[in-house]
Amino acid sequence: MTLDEKLAQISCVWLKKGDFLDSEGNFQPEEVAKIHPNGVGCYARPQDTQGMEAEIERKDVNDSTVIRSLTGRNPADTVALVNDIQRWHIENTRLGIPTLFHEEGLHGYQAYQATSFPQSIAIASTFDVELTERIYAITAREIRARGIHHVLSPVVDVALDPRWGRIEETFGEDPYLVSRMGVAAVKGFQGSGFPIADDKVLTTLKHMTGHGQPEAGMNVGPAHLSERNLYEVFFPPFEAAVKEANAASVMASYNEINGIPSHANSWLLNDVLRDEWNFDGAVVADYFAINELEKRHGIVENIGEAGALSLRSGVDLELPDGVAFYALKDRITSGEYDISYVDQAVGRVLEMKERGRVFETPYADADYATEITGNAEARAVALEAAQKAPVLLKNDGILPLSKSKYKRIAVIGPNAAITVLGGYSDEPKQTVSILDGIKTEVGQNASVVHAQGVTLTDNRSWWDDEVNLTSPEQNLRDIQKAVEIAKTADLIILAIGGDESTSREAWSETHQGDRNDITLIGEQKQLVDAIGALNKPTVGVVISGRPLALTNVEADLDAILYGWILGQETGTAVADILFGDVNPSGKMPVSVPHTVGQIPAFYNHKPTARRGYAFGDAGPLYAFGHGLSYTTFDVSEPSLNTTTIGIDGNATVSVNVSNTGDVAGDEVVQMYIRDKFSSVTRPVKELKGFKRVSLAAGETKTVTFEIGPEALRFYDINMERVVEPGAFDIMVGNSSTNTKSVELIVE
Amino acid sequence: MTLDEKLAQISCVWLKKGDFLDSEGNFQPEEVAKIHPNGVGCYARPQDTQGMEAEIERKDVNDSTVIRSLTGRNPADTVALVNDIQRWHIENTRLGIPTLFHEEGLHGYQAYQATSFPQSIAIASTFDVELTERIYAITAREIRARGIHHVLSPVVDVALDPRWGRIEETFGEDPYLVSRMGVAAVKGFQGSGFPIADDKVLTTLKHMTGHGQPEAGMNVGPAHLSERNLYEVFFPPFEAAVKEANAASVMASYNEINGIPSHANSWLLNDVLRDEWNFDGAVVADYFAINELEKRHGIVENIGEAGALSLRSGVDLELPDGVAFYALKDRITSGEYDISYVDQAVGRVLEMKERGRVFETPYADADYATEITGNAEARAVALEAAQKAPVLLKNDGILPLSKSKYKRIAVIGPNAAITVLGGYSDEPKQTVSILDGIKTEVGQNASVVHAQGVTLTDNRSWWDDEVNLTSPEQNLRDIQKAVEIAKTADLIILAIGGDESTSREAWSETHQGDRNDITLIGEQKQLVDAIGALNKPTVGVVISGRPLALTNVEADLDAILYGWILGQETGTAVADILFGDVNPSGKMPVSVPHTVGQIPAFYNHKPTARRGYAFGDAGPLYAFGHGLSYTTFDVSEPSLNTTTIGIDGNATVSVNVSNTGDVAGDEVVQMYIRDKFSSVTRPVKELKGFKRVSLAAGETKTVTFEIGPEALRFYDINMERVVEPGAFDIMVGNSSTNTKSVELIVE
Repeated sequence: MTLDEKLAQISCVWLKKGDFLDSEGNFQPEEVAKIHPNGVGCYARPQDTQGMEAEIERKDVNDSTVIRSLTGRNPADTVALVNDIQRWHIENTRLGIPTLFHEEGLHGYQAYQATSFPQSIAIASTFDVELTERIYAITAREIRARGIHHVLSPVVDVALDPRWGRIEETFGEDPYLVSRMGVAAVKGFQGSGFPIADDKVLTTLKHMTGHGQPEAGMNVGPAHLSERNLYEVFFPPFEAAVKEANAASVMASYNEINGIPSHANSWLLNDVLRDEWNFDGAVVADYFAINELEKRHGIVENIGEAGALSLRSGVDLELPDGVAFYALKDRITSGEYDISYVDQAVGRVLEMKERGRVFETPYADADYATEITGNAEARAVALEAAQKAPVLLKNDGILPLSKSKYKRIAVIGPNAAITVLGGYSDEPKQTVSILDGIKTEVGQNASVVHAQGVTLTDNRSWWDDEVNLTSPEQNLRDIQKAVEIAKTADLIILAIGGDESTSREAWSETHQGDRNDITLIGEQKQLVDAIGALNKPTVGVVISGRPLALTNVEADLDAILYGWILGQETGTAVADILFGDVNPSGKMPVSVPHTVGQIPAFYNHKPTARRGYAFGDAGPLYAFGHGLSYTTFDVSEPSLNTTTIGIDGNATVSVNVSNTGDVAGDEVVQMYIRDKFSSVTRPVKELKGFKRVSLAAGETKTVTFEIGPEALRFYDINMERVVEPGAFDIMVGNSSTNTKSVELIVE
Repeated sequence: MTLDEKLAQISCVWLKKGDFLDSEGNFQPEEVAKIHPNGVGCYARPQDTQGMEAEIERKDVNDSTVIRSLTGRNPADTVALVNDIQRWHIENTRLGIPTLFHEEGLHGYQAYQATSFPQSIAIASTFDVELTERIYAITAREIRARGIHHVLSPVVDVALDPRWGRIEETFGEDPYLVSRMGVAAVKGFQGSGFPIADDKVLTTLKHMTGHGQPEAGMNVGPAHLSERNLYEVFFPPFEAAVKEANAASVMASYNEINGIPSHANSWLLNDVLRDEWNFDGAVVADYFAINELEKRHGIVENIGEAGALSLRSGVDLELPDGVAFYALKDRITSGEYDISYVDQAVGRVLEMKERGRVFETPYADADYATEITGNAEARAVALEAAQKAPVLLKNDGILPLSKSKYKRIAVIGPNAAITVLGGYSDEPKQTVSILDGIKTEVGQNASVVHAQGVTLTDNRSWWDDEVNLTSPEQNLRDIQKAVEIAKTADLIILAIGGDESTSREAWSETHQGDRNDITLIGEQKQLVDAIGALNKPTVGVVISGRPLALTNVEADLDAILYGWILGQETGTAVADILFGDVNPSGKMPVSVPHTVGQIPAFYNHKPTARRGYAFGDAGPLYAFGHGLSYTTFDVSEPSLNTTTIGIDGNATVSVNVSNTGDVAGDEVVQMYIRDKFSSVTRPVKELKGFKRVSLAAGETKTVTFEIGPEALRFYDINMERVVEPGAFDIMVGNSSTNTKSVELIVE
């Protein structure tokens, strides 16, 4: 390979720029050939039509029910473009190496007509590993059907700050839960082993690391993390997904850790990721992040230095547009820069294409793509996830709603008539709003009326920079209208929370999405107060990617269902739960504080944390692992199969879980462990096992957890992983604050 | 020395327990001899009478004007006790080694009748190094006059969380400012060199380290700090006070850093403090902190292990009661523990006594102590500090108040009739409340009326555990009364903020002092709103140890003077400033955010921090270094004596500072530096110099700062301290957000 051919392989093109497409969005090979005669190693987001001179014609989707977005190509159009590009690379470049397309697939394929599952934090709240794997397997096949072999997913950042707009993209605050969900996602995407099967895609673990606790909750802010904190909290999901599921690639994070931006962190990407964990895939850059080494971080003075530094630090593939790595050419020809760094990266990119079977299966079939995308099976899984994710936080007995009792139901609020899909979404084939879901549910049994009450912003967009809060005057007027409508009803369902414009990725100074407040935004509190004052049966359904402190509205609501973001089937799932067709079973994947002033509020803190506040709450409003049901469960005292083990030993702990109520339901049994005395301080409890069990009314099942070195070990003062002799509390229950304990002795 | 004699030397007794005192508070040598026949190495707080069976008779102090406290011994009584104890040690123990008494002296000697200066954070806001040294010199002589040779002061923690109740005890958020203040304090306490002079005391740097950014703002919470963060932010004040001022002792902090409690952190206390910085004094334990290695941190299983670990980790002296080190006896006699750790600590304690001239000057003179304590000179310095500390944050022109214009002045608010002294205070000889100060100031020119308006808590105590907020009902009634009184006035002064019961050291789960909110506590906003609605001239004086977000009350106030805690002369100083006898000149030693949701808000952040929030403020409400004056100042463009220096070179930067207004005033000129490109990320600006200059109206002075390697260097990726070639912005101005810049090239 020539140097130019090599540099092309580790570089990328984002077609959204329109450079190589005509005004209809068709590929112009002669344009690419002028600039990239050797082709390029990868292409970003081929389904994307953003920035095209002429937008691709949109299909018949009801605009009012989905997030405003520049809709991408449909399956057939994507396949046509992908095949065109691929054919040119294979047939018209000297080496004929196919390119590697990548797409986004955070919670379903981010593409027009693809299935939109609940957002990641909602997937986490299912505590259902098997379901998670199915979700990402469907995502994989919808992506792969369009000829794309690589996805920039899953996000396995541990998220510790509810101000951060990307918290919805994560599996929550717990390293163990994030690890289990991350491993399941990678298995769903990739299947088992390389090369991957024809319905699989290569994954990317995002974002290594420290992204989930940015300074002041502001996106890409510095991560102040000690080596111990990295190893104890932020590394485990990456390590698990690499070691257990063989994730094909890892994305470096935008942020710095202790002065070192991740794209320049050789310790992180080479020493830890590759040498310690034996990762042998490729490291990809986050979009424009190499450039930011100069422009934001100020650790290099030009783009060439940025490329040299990041490549040397372990980044193999520049996204989304090759600039910095191409700038290495002069340095290499002059002998100033070691070409072996380039060779190494090229080798990894080619190996990745081998693993993805890009050489063998470069082309896609448009008919198959159209047929498989968003099909009935996918839709059923999207519904199942949306049914399992919502967390019931309060229920004074009103839920499940009687199907015969209420004759006129008012569905009110900013999230009533829309379907919030969350960040990294496009328009799926269909969406069901809460309003629609309830109408369908009650059919002719009741009339359903609606009022907006509050409108959150003037631009419900995840994409657009400019978003303004709706004027209080307008909202206060609308609240009055909503009150008038509510007065006519005998049941009120308040669909409140946030949307894609109030919590989202803040990708620039002009594109904000983090918040310095975690109460209900806008005039929603006034809405809840005004409705609450009617003293009618009132149920709150919260749709929000961000954990919200509902402290100041709880009292007005007879029940609260926290749905997070539930995807295209939102309304059906919510109606199923509210009316008792489905028993809610989700659990909080984060600790929700009473106020933003309590941050951070994670449950797995050290013994000296959480001393308390004067005149204020220091504990969680909603605890990690908490979630109610329409039935009641009893979890017995845990019993060990042995009270004493050696430091390499294993034990099991068992509990009997009984459904002591009248309806069937799922319970998520959780095991936490505390090392009572250890040579460095250890958290007061850490999740080390969980199982979702389905129980008929009156049924009892035994749940058993394995306890081995993995659950007991920690990093000692020399950062060696050890199990230390002594006593451990083994705590089992149905939330982090409701457990029974037994002591295990390690000798 | 026998082993028992050695262990006694590294242990202490806190007489507050009453064990060795009779009911009158007199020393009972025969009781000590039974348990401590070899004497003990040190005694805690001899002036203290807490926990005595019979409280020592209190002297005639007006209870209503000072913090409720268990008043300690007067100077003569303290001297009598100290001399009794000392005499027994010298004359009745085998070796006759005198003991080492210590006291608290955070902002003046914490003792009955001693001078109470403004709280540390207010001292910092003077930006006056010379004054700081004088304050601590007076503190030193008042302590030493009672026969005490050792003080547990100053606090040189960098404080980054306004929720933390101890933030008032610090010199603020900036490593450079804290360093300069800390060095000045140590020089004031110790003078120059050992042995110290007869009016000096040995200092203790508190608390090494990480104490100032506890998790969630809760006292003693874990510090999540990388090695880099420690070296860049938290170490500099300790290093400066050790190297420049030879601080005699250092106190380890309660908190853990990354899993290692400081009392068990050999890297911190031995490798960094002793080996890197060449500290050759003694490390003292924080009160009960060795015990907490077991009881709170859970890293040892009993007190003997705690003693063994902490001594080995570099702690030399156990405070306040010897328990853990005595428990080493069996381990040593059995050969299990190396006696050399004990010998080393004993050597350091004896050396400390040498440095303090305890052997030569063990006794004190009661008459001298009575005479020197709280004398006129001390009072004048307390007043000077209280005049220089307050920060003028807003002034629509109402200030300075006309002495002839207002005929009826209402002084209203929770801090009007009391004198807040802050944590680590006792009752000084006199206090002046704001109400009293204004009455004195206006004399017969105006009538002064008063209303409480709001009462903050039911127990204005720093000492007592139980404190409850006043009921809103009572406060709302009192606000109405205050409004009625305000209506009769032509000027209203609102003395608002917090006191010793709302922001204080949270020393246990039952003794809280941290907050999850930083707005005005209680019904103070309602008070301000109600008074503001009168549309009369209204000035807010904020007395608070905590930085408060005044966002929601600013508009109602024509002027805001932020006094922090101003000590015994509060009222005189405030009146002097309000009526223009003194021109305000304090500057913010911390960045104050608009809301608690912005934390942390420090100004010297990395370039990728502070991207912004959606629909909310991300910048400071009051910037670090900001403070208004009654005159106006112009700071010229900065000019360098050379535009280029070598990496070991020096430059100077000069500005002309002009008083362009009509009255004399002081301006604090500040120099900030930014390394524009560097191999690890660097803050957007860092304070590297400041000078307080006094200027007559119309006067201009030239202010020059040295720029040398100390100001330009940083820790590179290998944690080596380097100056890297390249461009530096040299910014000079009168706040962190108002500077002019010049570029310096380092070749």
